[in-house]
Amino acid sequence: MSGWVKVAGLGPGDEAMVTDQVRAALREATDVVGYIPSVARVAARPGLTLHPSDNRVEIDRANHALDLAAAGRRVVVVSSGDPGVFAMASALFEALEARPDPGSFDIEILPGITAMLAAAARLGAPLGHDFCAINLSDNLKPWELIERRLKLAAEGGFAMAFYNPRAASRPGRFERVLEILRDSLPGHVLISFARAVTTGEERLLTVPLSEATPEMADMRTMVIVGNADTRRVGRWVYSPRRAG
Amino acid sequence: MSGWVKVAGLGPGDEAMVTDQVRAALREATDVVGYIPSVARVAARPGLTLHPSDNRVEIDRANHALDLAAAGRRVVVVSSGDPGVFAMASALFEALEARPDPGSFDIEILPGITAMLAAAARLGAPLGHDFCAINLSDNLKPWELIERRLKLAAEGGFAMAFYNPRAASRPGRFERVLEILRDSLPGHVLISFARAVTTGEERLLTVPLSEATPEMADMRTMVIVGNADTRRVGRWVYSPRRAG
Repeated sequence: MSGWVKVAGLGPGDEAMVTDQVRAALREATDVVGYIPSVARVAARPGLTLHPSDNRVEIDRANHALDLAAAGRRVVVVSSGDPGVFAMASALFEALEARPDPGSFDIEILPGITAMLAAAARLGAPLGHDFCAINLSDNLKPWELIERRLKLAAEGGFAMAFYNPRAASRPGRFERVLEILRDSLPGHVLISFARAVTTGEERLLTVPLSEATPEMADMRTMVIVGNADTRRVGRWVYSPRRAG
Repeated sequence: MSGWVKVAGLGPGDEAMVTDQVRAALREATDVVGYIPSVARVAARPGLTLHPSDNRVEIDRANHALDLAAAGRRVVVVSSGDPGVFAMASALFEALEARPDPGSFDIEILPGITAMLAAAARLGAPLGHDFCAINLSDNLKPWELIERRLKLAAEGGFAMAFYNPRAASRPGRFERVLEILRDSLPGHVLISFARAVTTGEERLLTVPLSEATPEMADMRTMVIVGNADTRRVGRWVYSPRRAG
């Protein structure tokens, strides 16, 4: 088989944060597959077929990419951020696992700047000490597991980065997240809401946990919770390297 | 003040993984400050002064950068990986905090591809589900805190990424890490050792926890521990999106 699949991260939105490696893959591609807003970031050109698809069809999209590669096409699956963090890389391997010939595919994962690290950079350095990354969506795991992880992360003094804060299947769930955090952490702990970072619609807000409300996050917001030592200096928020 | 400081991530080693944003900052810089091997990655040119410094002098380096900026210089502080993950961004804010005039500095943090995400991409998608990033160095925190975090992360079913696995002040400590993991997790859980990823010296090794030995990691190794569902497909290792 001469075709290949590269799963590439486009970063948070700013085109200057795309790596050369990803740009090169897009130049060589015959096909680009991905969620509509990610594919919209790829410039059309002769010889390149764009295949935008809707949200929540990750496995279909992965199978489509594998089928195209099996037919000799050079396929880039685009994800915003990094494909390995709550994005298309795992879905591709799930689809691959269901194939009779997983070893026959030429696959490469091309990392990108993931949302939490782009958000952290805009805020300062809130993830400069040990931290956890948690997907708050309960589409693919029980809500109880999310609650348990929040409590353990708080108990361990980890900073936390939350993906998909408002994606839970029922309203009120992010309110419950804030409640758990307030029950588990001192009220002065800083929580940051970083919306649409590096785009024209970027909005940054940091408040003590005691003042946080659910409306501060929407689907485009990355939420970062500091640890007990996280603090402000000037307009920045950072976690010192030292702890304990 | 017309000077500035940009703290920039050079990524894991492959020059194709450096962002345009970081390249542009290096083109505009008058001074580059950083740990010797990071500064060695920046090409010399007329008008650019390189200031390589030794390891473990992060605060001196940060103060040097702030002093240069205060004198009107355009300074890039280079870190490998991402500056916000166990790197120079927090050190810069610590130094800034000790200044009488923190608000007077023009500072920007430019993210890069951090080691754990570069390693994850080379391995497959082991961090495709909730995960923790833990710095195993006990230079700046008590060893007991590291042990506690390992146990809580294991209890929560988080995948884990370890920075500085062999940096602990005493030998035998990484052996203790493996012991804690084996006590807390099923023996089939996969652990990956990703050394010098994206460089000519890259070496990838994945074994079940029950077969892991301390010598599998050195100072240039990123260690990634899967969760109980993490598995192999072909030559890849990945964590499914679904859990519980």
